[in-house]
Amino acid sequence: MTNILILGAGAMGTAFCFPPADAGHTVRLVGTHLDAEWIESVRKTGIHPKLKVKLPNGVSAFSHDQFGEALGLGNELIVLGVNSAGVPWAVEQLGPLLKGTTPILMLTKGLHAQRDAIQILPDAVRSGLAKYGIEKLAVGAIAGPCIAAELAAGRDTTVVVAYADARLPEWIAHLLTTSHYHVRPSMDLVGVEVCAALKNFYALAVGCPSGLLAQQDPAANRAQMHNPAAALFTQALLEMARFVSFLGGDQKSVMGLAGAGDLYVTCQAGRNSRTGYFLGSGLRYSEVRATHMANETVEGAELALVIGPVLERLFSLGRLDPKAFPLAKAITDAICRDLSLRIPWTALHQV
Amino acid sequence: MTNILILGAGAMGTAFCFPPADAGHTVRLVGTHLDAEWIESVRKTGIHPKLKVKLPNGVSAFSHDQFGEALGLGNELIVLGVNSAGVPWAVEQLGPLLKGTTPILMLTKGLHAQRDAIQILPDAVRSGLAKYGIEKLAVGAIAGPCIAAELAAGRDTTVVVAYADARLPEWIAHLLTTSHYHVRPSMDLVGVEVCAALKNFYALAVGCPSGLLAQQDPAANRAQMHNPAAALFTQALLEMARFVSFLGGDQKSVMGLAGAGDLYVTCQAGRNSRTGYFLGSGLRYSEVRATHMANETVEGAELALVIGPVLERLFSLGRLDPKAFPLAKAITDAICRDLSLRIPWTALHQV
Repeated sequence: MTNILILGAGAMGTAFCFPPADAGHTVRLVGTHLDAEWIESVRKTGIHPKLKVKLPNGVSAFSHDQFGEALGLGNELIVLGVNSAGVPWAVEQLGPLLKGTTPILMLTKGLHAQRDAIQILPDAVRSGLAKYGIEKLAVGAIAGPCIAAELAAGRDTTVVVAYADARLPEWIAHLLTTSHYHVRPSMDLVGVEVCAALKNFYALAVGCPSGLLAQQDPAANRAQMHNPAAALFTQALLEMARFVSFLGGDQKSVMGLAGAGDLYVTCQAGRNSRTGYFLGSGLRYSEVRATHMANETVEGAELALVIGPVLERLFSLGRLDPKAFPLAKAITDAICRDLSLRIPWTALHQV
Repeated sequence: MTNILILGAGAMGTAFCFPPADAGHTVRLVGTHLDAEWIESVRKTGIHPKLKVKLPNGVSAFSHDQFGEALGLGNELIVLGVNSAGVPWAVEQLGPLLKGTTPILMLTKGLHAQRDAIQILPDAVRSGLAKYGIEKLAVGAIAGPCIAAELAAGRDTTVVVAYADARLPEWIAHLLTTSHYHVRPSMDLVGVEVCAALKNFYALAVGCPSGLLAQQDPAANRAQMHNPAAALFTQALLEMARFVSFLGGDQKSVMGLAGAGDLYVTCQAGRNSRTGYFLGSGLRYSEVRATHMANETVEGAELALVIGPVLERLFSLGRLDPKAFPLAKAITDAICRDLSLRIPWTALHQV
């Protein structure tokens, strides 16, 4: 039996209690300061109000001011389940309290950017913790098709756990695999993380044709918009592969669970593709934020705001070829400049 | 202006009239002996009853007994739009009449198999025509996300045209590209064709979780089955890549329009994923054929019947590793042996 601490009690962090609890481990779920209401509900009823399921036995819930206490109980794995905006906060919580070399596993997806450099989140966390004198800590990630509500409902899925360290992926895959949650090891942390972050970003574009469809009179034969969505899906994979190569990852991950797999599921449901739908229907991003997606975190749009300015610099420095990223350009123009999302069809699949 | 003859007036053959007609070319649509009713309707009303749209000007319709006449008018490109079972028939029609070296472009998707050899359909057509003394004929294919009804309704899509001959893809891409139909050239005829055929086959598996969902009581949180579908989608891509390598194609095509793109669209709609839905709901293939899919051609199941016995031989000869194709094995067992379609989760993503 292993003790696992999960920091972040949103839908994903909470749903992630299931695999380790089902595998017989002890799970300590610690809410952030924003999760107080959910933690209280879990304590009182066992039910997480957003996830709408009863958590398994073997899960105990802690509020953010009990983080030190939960950490002090001793844990062999710390899981970060905050959203991407919460990563600096999580580092501030962990930095003063972390002792030893308990590995960190990130559920959070995103990229960190500064001037003309893009960094995967596990590296950003490592850099952040180094400021507290914490060195040589293994920070990895788990990725793949995994909608939180489905994970909590015990739907089968296969995911990939990635660390730069060869030993950890096998151990964690073994630790977390259950009859429905199938975990495969990978050492391509960069490739897996770049894919996992960009799938949210590109889902904005793949969702767009269905929004366009809703604006038009139905075709005589009731034709849908699956063809354009699929062509955009493919362009997304191509551009993801170029980002992965640029950042030093392995293109094979793009065809795998963290790439094509997670992009597939993200295009079927969720806030990113729904935002894409509204962009496709003709709304500007500012209008979508103000109406349909008010008070929602749209990770793909957050990521566009982070990487948009860096991409512009990398294009102008000649370090990336804009012809290889026409869809990324269309998305960042829509999000960062609040322009209409226009699909540059003639530029797609040209290189 | 170029003259293009399309043989096969089903939904796809007929929808394919649009790009060349929109680009200003003359299109001669020739029905097979099974399409007589549709050809008559096109002649009388301009409307194809199955496609439910009016065909553009510049399209003339011919019945199968006028094939010689249509061929005699002179054509610079012959398009084969029959279904995979109709390929031998098409070769019999073309063999005695074909003169010169008019290239053939195949819309038909499938694979030809004999003993322990699998052949792409363009090679099967070339072999078939060689028996009529027709040699050195260029036979290529067009593939990518392209539901017929959407093509006919002018939805954007991007597709790939592939020939082993370097000159033809560029020429045909130029010939067929319109403001909504974006054609990209490829020389990987084997990779493109293997993907285009297998997408129907693997869509049977990706469609299966939604059928399973329909059989269960709804989850407390109304969770869907997108996670398992996405994990299967990814396994399909991995196995497609292995088939492509085995048959001498380029794995890059798997991440492209003919691979991931066409698999994506095939999993969103159509007879193959619908058949997968029924298999997932617990029916045997014989039951699906007898009820929901009576009188329908399910190309993915037809392909399973073709390649199933060959795969068994290749596995037993040690020429293919069954561990690399667990999903193909589950599908062929379901179709060829009429067993329940069981997803072998623990065997997926292991190699």
